Amino acid sequence: MAAHHLILLLLALIALSSSPAAFAADPNQLQDFCVADTNSNRNTANRLGSNVTLVFAQQFPGLNTLGVAGARLDFAAGGVNPPHTHPRATELLVVIKGTLYAGFVASTNKLYTKVLYEGDAFIFPQGLIHFQFNIGKTDAVAWASFGSQNPGRVDIANAVFGAKPPVSLYLLEKSFQLDEKTVELLQAKLWITNS
Amino acid sequence: MAAHHLILLLLALIALSSSPAAFAADPNQLQDFCVADTNSNRNTANRLGSNVTLVFAQQFPGLNTLGVAGARLDFAAGGVNPPHTHPRATELLVVIKGTLYAGFVASTNKLYTKVLYEGDAFIFPQGLIHFQFNIGKTDAVAWASFGSQNPGRVDIANAVFGAKPPVSLYLLEKSFQLDEKTVELLQAKLWITNS
Amino acid sequence: MAAHHLILLLLALIALSSSPAAFAADPNQLQDFCVADTNSNRNTANRLGSNVTLVFAQQFPGLNTLGVAGARLDFAAGGVNPPHTHPRATELLVVIKGTLYAGFVASTNKLYTKVLYEGDAFIFPQGLIHFQFNIGKTDAVAWASFGSQNPGRVDIANAVFGAKPPVSLYLLEKSFQLDEKTVELLQAKLWITNS
Amino acid sequence: MAAHHLILLLLALIALSSSPAAFAADPNQLQDFCVADTNSNRNTANRLGSNVTLVFAQQFPGLNTLGVAGARLDFAAGGVNPPHTHPRATELLVVIKGTLYAGFVASTNKLYTKVLYEGDAFIFPQGLIHFQFNIGKTDAVAWASFGSQNPGRVDIANAVFGAKPPVSLYLLEKSFQLDEKTVELLQAKLWITNS
Amino acid sequence: MAAHHLILLLLALIALSSSPAAFAADPNQLQDFCVADTNSNRNTANRLGSNVTLVFAQQFPGLNTLGVAGARLDFAAGGVNPPHTHPRATELLVVIKGTLYAGFVASTNKLYTKVLYEGDAFIFPQGLIHFQFNIGKTDAVAWASFGSQNPGRVDIANAVFGAKPPVSLYLLEKSFQLDEKTVELLQAKLWITNS
Amino acid sequence: MAAHHLILLLLALIALSSSPAAFAADPNQLQDFCVADTNSNRNTANRLGSNVTLVFAQQFPGLNTLGVAGARLDFAAGGVNPPHTHPRATELLVVIKGTLYAGFVASTNKLYTKVLYEGDAFIFPQGLIHFQFNIGKTDAVAWASFGSQNPGRVDIANAVFGAKPPVSLYLLEKSFQLDEKTVELLQAKLWITNS
Repeated sequence: MAAHHLILLLLALIALSSSPAAFAADPNQLQDFCVADTNSNRNTANRLGSNVTLVFAQQFPGLNTLGVAGARLDFAAGGVNPPHTHPRATELLVVIKGTLYAGFVASTNKLYTKVLYEGDAFIFPQGLIHFQFNIGKTDAVAWASFGSQNPGRVDIANAVFGAKPPVSLYLLEKSFQLDEKTVELLQAKLWITNS
Repeated sequence: MAAHHLILLLLALIALSSSPAAFAADPNQLQDFCVADTNSNRNTANRLGSNVTLVFAQQFPGLNTLGVAGARLDFAAGGVNPPHTHPRATELLVVIKGTLYAGFVASTNKLYTKVLYEGDAFIFPQGLIHFQFNIGKTDAVAWASFGSQNPGRVDIANAVFGAKPPVSLYLLEKSFQLDEKTVELLQAKLWITNS
Repeated sequence: MAAHHLILLLLALIALSSSPAAFAADPNQLQDFCVADTNSNRNTANRLGSNVTLVFAQQFPGLNTLGVAGARLDFAAGGVNPPHTHPRATELLVVIKGTLYAGFVASTNKLYTKVLYEGDAFIFPQGLIHFQFNIGKTDAVAWASFGSQNPGRVDIANAVFGAKPPVSLYLLEKSFQLDEKTVELLQAKLWITNS
Repeated sequence: MAAHHLILLLLALIALSSSPAAFAADPNQLQDFCVADTNSNRNTANRLGSNVTLVFAQQFPGLNTLGVAGARLDFAAGGVNPPHTHPRATELLVVIKGTLYAGFVASTNKLYTKVLYEGDAFIFPQGLIHFQFNIGKTDAVAWASFGSQNPGRVDIANAVFGAKPPVSLYLLEKSFQLDEKTVELLQAKLWITNS
Repeated sequence: MAAHHLILLLLALIALSSSPAAFAADPNQLQDFCVADTNSNRNTANRLGSNVTLVFAQQFPGLNTLGVAGARLDFAAGGVNPPHTHPRATELLVVIKGTLYAGFVASTNKLYTKVLYEGDAFIFPQGLIHFQFNIGKTDAVAWASFGSQNPGRVDIANAVFGAKPPVSLYLLEKSFQLDEKTVELLQAKLWITNS
Repeated sequence: MAAHHLILLLLALIALSSSPAAFAADPNQLQDFCVADTNSNRNTANRLGSNVTLVFAQQFPGLNTLGVAGARLDFAAGGVNPPHTHPRATELLVVIKGTLYAGFVASTNKLYTKVLYEGDAFIFPQGLIHFQFNIGKTDAVAWASFGSQNPGRVDIANAVFGAKPPVSLYLLEKSFQLDEKTVELLQAKLWITNS
């Protein structure tokens, strides 16, 4: 795979621009088309060893009202896409290059995992905690499809221990069965996101 | 508040029962009514000091197709409803008795919190991590409204550290910046749910 | 229950404010959070002996796109919440204090009723005519949950006999099997709303 | 207009029949087609002088999952389609023959009316009370379109005064400002529906 | 049928105008009413012998958020409404005058057709190719109902052979099994629309 | 890219299987997860030089209620994915290998096209006619994401000229401006699908 660039070109929103108010509250896709454009680099030289390039409506207004979005995932060898959720869409993942280990936890707390090779697909249902990491010796690349223009992304460790201002010590100790010192150490760490 | 019982009576699903197949895939509520019935006790004598009584379609088939659900929350003094999400609905909480401290973390990792007295209402948007705990000296009671018949509930600590089979040590160490020993200690604990 | 105030605080609509046009027509909730704020009194000293405090998106823009709403119902002894419908949502009612008699009429014209004590819940399906009244000797309070940010409320007697300009005499006589004089008397009365 | 028959032919539900369970809960139309068939007479010789032929999914399973329905309205001279609502859809009415007087009451209790001639169209928003009557000297015919396969129909007078068992006298007196005797007289009448 | 005019009157969008931003992204109909107005002639003196008068939200902003639309179809004797699709809604057609031959092609390529007389109804599922033509000796008129405020219309021949700029010769030859000359002749023709 | 297999494993539909009727008509995703499994070869040795592997709910029941689907597209050099539509979803295409020329026709008949290299993405809005072909000298591979579990696929040439039974000669002549002989020749050809 020689080139890894995403190109999306934003064309005019004809129907909307002609009478924007008229379509302001309709539940379904109401215009004919929108196409968006960008060109991005993907650097996996971070603590997690991964990089997520979101193609959501916030990045590309052309997706507006069309009910679909995507994301490109790049992993260094050993790279991790840490436990997270998408509050507003199910994810369909397909591996384009390399080998990933992927899983999600159902609301029953049952864990489902699978080793995914090139061409393999896997589903992460809406709002459930899921993750992937690269178990191969080379870089890995995957593509994620979402059934919403704005799936959202909540990184669990970041939200719980890296929130600003920090979440109550008392609550975290009692909820995670951790002592005060461990919670304080966790809250003092640098929490980054790969997206 | 002398009695705290929920009574919901399941009546016949007339429209559905007359031609069930005909309505199998329609996106909206198609029948006139459904009412459901139960009578439950609420015991907060557990490690978390809280008890959640779900009134979802799984408990009460009468909610089927009606797009709304509820839950009763009981807290002992100091009781905690630990960080969790609802994958399929926003929650509107109203405090019926006592004083709660509530909060949620946006996907930007910003924390929003509020002290809630009797009659206070608060919103936890769909899929975002949120929590409450009783900061008063007496029991507390709250009612949660959801815009779905089946909001779901994902307990964060349980899903991350209490999943069966357990989530990969490597992933949790790297994602939560914890050493192997701490992760193993956490995974060995007893994880309960209050719902 | 000492205090009965609703407090809802409006926080910034971050996602929307950064690119409002991009989200104008999407069918689902697209932003992370919104919280709204008010402080209201509830006076039941009116002809109906009841007071409904709506917590809809019109009152609280913070509910925007979140698909849920609520209402607080206060009743004096004997107070009535007259027959009405919610055109855009099902209602899940829970009694917080006192004893109510509640009912709704299915589209088959079959009436379903129930006496509701503290903690009891009942469902009024979308668009069906329903009512409650206080059959206890003290005040009563209830909370209503709705699966829409804007359920709407149509008071039947007001809409039929209190419309401005008035509905055709001929139509009302023929439809309600009333004589002209009775219709004119009804149309001359003062029609109030408790919400 | 010589012949007034509706012919709708039910064809096989191919996608559904091959794997019915798979599509049972999807929110959108999932199959390619459905067509339904009937042949009905329309008799307006009743107290209201009107007849409504519903073309909903209950009558025609072929409409299942397709999100649209219709109804044919026939009026004798002076015939009335009494105040009613559709709980689950907006109605778009077009007059095919004759002259109708139509109106609806907004939730603000404001009345909107219009005289409709052949070819005229009018909208009755979801859940609002509306009516039509024939102000011409000949029969009138109209066609109603609905944006749901199962709009429902609630006849106001029937639901309020003709419910079985009857609605509480106390409630109706207080809500409609009628004396007990008038309510009892109304409840004793024969309430019919034209649909 | 003496007069064939559509009259739709646009009234104030009260709820929206009071706080337009608040309702910008809600999935459902949020306002009480909208009515729209026009008066059109229908000329079938064109190559196709037909005329389609759309009553979509683009023509009538009053349909905004109400999830329903319509269209009037006029046919000269022998007039054709050529193969087309509606990308966003199912169509329910009812014949008001004359005799039509109608059909659609399922995604299995199976053709379904029917001769429709006055009062007959037929369904064209969302996104499937369909058509009608007048097989009677007089003019014909039909009314189409749609379960969306903005169904859209794609004329197949126009889109394939009349696109501006033209679609690739190579693609059309290979896809339609036509030689280059025939494709060029088709692309050189004048392509009109009857709507 | 050594291996190109899709693996999707069907796990138990726990929530549904425990009470299938209860969830039969709800508009949203109501269960936690579903994963599906297959392993397919892709042969592009056909007249079109392309092969489409659908990952829709019909192929993989595990996608049921999750609102997302996908497809793998393989092209030989010069291979064509002919003009087609998806009646129930927008498509987000990303090129995994090779160089494609892609386009769609808006309902205004305006054509939008783009050359897509590895990593490029493009959007085909719901229900609009679109196509791709391989303009590189090697094989090409792309992945399509859809915001529905069952997008459907209508091949334009097949539906118009390959329908069984055939579409009316008169209609096709008049609609496509073709003589009878050309239509008959087209209808006599073998029409295949690449999916």
